[in-house]
Amino acid sequence: MSAADIGLIGLAVMGQNLVLNMAEHGFHVCVYNRSEQKTNEFIENRAAGFPISAAYSLQELVDSLAAPRKVMLMVKAGEVVDSFIEQLVPLLDEGDIIIDGGNSLYTDSNRRTKALAEKGILFIGTGVSGGEEGARFGPSIMPGGNKQAWESVKPIFQSIAAKSGEEACCDWVGDDGAGHYVKMVHNGIEYGDMQLISEAYQLMREGLGMSADECQAVFAEWNKGVLDSYLIEITAEILTFKDSDGEPLVDKILDAAGQKGTGKWTGISSLELGIPVTLITESVYARCLSALKSERVQASKIYPRTAQAKTYSDDEKQAIIASIHDALYASKIISYAQGYMLMAEAAKAYSWDLNYGGIALMWRGGCIIRSRFLEEIKQAYQTEPNLANLLQAPFFEKAIKGAEHHWRKAVVFGIEQQIPTPTLSSALAFFDGYRSAVVPANLLQAQRDYFGAHTYERVDAPRGEFFHTDWIQSGGNVSSTTYEV
Amino acid sequence: MSAADIGLIGLAVMGQNLVLNMAEHGFHVCVYNRSEQKTNEFIENRAAGFPISAAYSLQELVDSLAAPRKVMLMVKAGEVVDSFIEQLVPLLDEGDIIIDGGNSLYTDSNRRTKALAEKGILFIGTGVSGGEEGARFGPSIMPGGNKQAWESVKPIFQSIAAKSGEEACCDWVGDDGAGHYVKMVHNGIEYGDMQLISEAYQLMREGLGMSADECQAVFAEWNKGVLDSYLIEITAEILTFKDSDGEPLVDKILDAAGQKGTGKWTGISSLELGIPVTLITESVYARCLSALKSERVQASKIYPRTAQAKTYSDDEKQAIIASIHDALYASKIISYAQGYMLMAEAAKAYSWDLNYGGIALMWRGGCIIRSRFLEEIKQAYQTEPNLANLLQAPFFEKAIKGAEHHWRKAVVFGIEQQIPTPTLSSALAFFDGYRSAVVPANLLQAQRDYFGAHTYERVDAPRGEFFHTDWIQSGGNVSSTTYEV
Repeated sequence: MSAADIGLIGLAVMGQNLVLNMAEHGFHVCVYNRSEQKTNEFIENRAAGFPISAAYSLQELVDSLAAPRKVMLMVKAGEVVDSFIEQLVPLLDEGDIIIDGGNSLYTDSNRRTKALAEKGILFIGTGVSGGEEGARFGPSIMPGGNKQAWESVKPIFQSIAAKSGEEACCDWVGDDGAGHYVKMVHNGIEYGDMQLISEAYQLMREGLGMSADECQAVFAEWNKGVLDSYLIEITAEILTFKDSDGEPLVDKILDAAGQKGTGKWTGISSLELGIPVTLITESVYARCLSALKSERVQASKIYPRTAQAKTYSDDEKQAIIASIHDALYASKIISYAQGYMLMAEAAKAYSWDLNYGGIALMWRGGCIIRSRFLEEIKQAYQTEPNLANLLQAPFFEKAIKGAEHHWRKAVVFGIEQQIPTPTLSSALAFFDGYRSAVVPANLLQAQRDYFGAHTYERVDAPRGEFFHTDWIQSGGNVSSTTYEV
Repeated sequence: MSAADIGLIGLAVMGQNLVLNMAEHGFHVCVYNRSEQKTNEFIENRAAGFPISAAYSLQELVDSLAAPRKVMLMVKAGEVVDSFIEQLVPLLDEGDIIIDGGNSLYTDSNRRTKALAEKGILFIGTGVSGGEEGARFGPSIMPGGNKQAWESVKPIFQSIAAKSGEEACCDWVGDDGAGHYVKMVHNGIEYGDMQLISEAYQLMREGLGMSADECQAVFAEWNKGVLDSYLIEITAEILTFKDSDGEPLVDKILDAAGQKGTGKWTGISSLELGIPVTLITESVYARCLSALKSERVQASKIYPRTAQAKTYSDDEKQAIIASIHDALYASKIISYAQGYMLMAEAAKAYSWDLNYGGIALMWRGGCIIRSRFLEEIKQAYQTEPNLANLLQAPFFEKAIKGAEHHWRKAVVFGIEQQIPTPTLSSALAFFDGYRSAVVPANLLQAQRDYFGAHTYERVDAPRGEFFHTDWIQSGGNVSSTTYEV
């Protein structure tokens, strides 16, 4: 065989499927896995008939590649990535490219881009989303890092990526860790979307006493409208799936959710940057709370749900379902608006030049959060590249206004039915705060000045001018606000 | 004068008042400040007549101290602390003590305790709360670090600390950064308490159209009951304070809140440790949102508040005020329960042996969150030191059950009035999740298994046994859940 176009290390779910995807698009891929057995199994079965070759050492892998060499890592994020980079560097030449396609933390990608650039190696840290199926048939790919590497990698990535119409759901995101940052926010939004769907489901099952099949029909119907998305689609499919005893499989699954870190990282970054990404963080916390299964069971005995099960007429039931739909839709808009606020602040903080419409396009297809909705976001930013906030785009203004009334009704329904809706209600609280010209932070600033001499600004003075009041009139004119020496 | 009992570096608000407090309790304090002028001003004015001396170099400061030397830093957290430690170490002898009384990050205190121990210097990182007045007349003090230093420092700290009955609001917290961690959680809870009060205030002012004076009367009344606390007390005092034109000063204060990091750190630590500290994090986000003043003003034009102002009978109004009271009380219980969950998890993660009743006692007096309520927490942990959760203590169970109905009504009132209540509603969502034996995380786990082969546990199988379903029945039996090599 001729020299390989790309080398790929790591033959777990995502790695195997990406390799098959590349090979199907005509690229010759050389693969390496720490376990020889796994490599052989792959080569002999799934890879059979494709232009895929195997290497049994990193040297062999590197030797098989055409220049500039492109080595892609699909390994566990963290130290494993650093370890492979360390082993690869001595084997590579200047201008060769290392690509990290795992869920790495963006600060690691910032660091790796810089460290490798000093050695003449070009680094790309790229988000890859779409799970097993996406990786195989067209993922969303979000590459960042050293832009010099992009031209060499672009043909492969754009060929294998999902398409939205004619356009590949893959384009250059930005310098250093920008690709992994955008992937992190993508995952955070995914956490939010999943939690929103779960709350809507719970409102129907517990609040309206609907069966899994009835809920399935609702989600399938919703998937034909503004909520049309991969996650709504698979939710409907999950709800039809029966266990061996004929009961819905979903009812046999333990309600304790795991997490792999990217939602948490999104929350941490939002706190560090001071951006109120309330919905994603509440969805991470909802997973944390779900994990406290035995404590919840214990607490349910102390605080049993006392809400009366009501009988609803079919009209009433349909009206409540319609409210839940609107609550889900409006909250989803809030979540994406918050995610975009976060990316904008990160771009400022890290000097990235992000293309917001381009990001929506990358998420439009292939990835877990793909949806019709993202087309509207793409268009909002294409129409107004300097859009201050998604909530100020005409399409979303109209959508929120149309949904607002029923959104409130759905949250109130949950509260009265004692069903937790942490993300639906948090999104509503954010919206009511965002559109309030005045929030009660004036009282809060007064408190801070009262007990800590932290000073405040005034509504009738220019911003940046700070005042202190001696609230207790006790003397002591030390008004500085920070510990000083 | 004789050798000084303690040296203090940093004469800003907290430093000056702590020095006066120590001196008033008979301790001889030697002070140092980077600006000589500030030192002289302090010595000539506020310090006059007290056993307080001045040093104009660190050498002079160190030379003035009795052995083992105790040097307390009241300087800006971060690099300034490290810089002073670096300068002090060569001047000190083995067994001398450096105390950091600033709002340092607990991970810095972990590091400093270890690094100084290697040099034979004992480090204490201590939280000090109470603002200007507390520092002067009795703060809450939360020391952690190198326990060998505690016996030397204890007499000074317990003398100057606030008292709750006979007991000092100061005791040893734990190793390394434990003192600063507990202080961080204290500050996070303070963020939550302030936001809760602000939301209650807003519901009354905007929702019920009450004046500042009317609100003042309500807070003053609340301060006689279960909400009796420093923050409720000063809120009433703030609302009586008139500007020079006779209008309430609070109305002249800009509604853009600042923050100094400790609330944010609490949120970040809770995400890192996987504990759903929703209320504190929502209160941090509320400050972030308040800071977006001009964007909110802009948004208020696009989305004007459309809730109809209602006229309430006096009875209706009193009933709503009573609901707001109960919402505030119940949410406050949730916030403290979450804070204690966080400390328990941190104790596990960092191998600290925390005394939960003792922490409530330390917060009982002197500090910003001091309240009658903390007496109940102290008693709950004294009665049951292994209490799984504050919400499972009989006193709080009764309190929550008594408040629950009106709590819901107050949150619904806010939603219908389009007034944001991020912490009141987040607390309610947490409570409804906490007491739910089953949450919809089963659906979420199904989704994760569907698109990412992340596997799930089953309700009818032992914990720790993981299952994968081939939901789309498309073949591909790669079920591993992590990137592997």
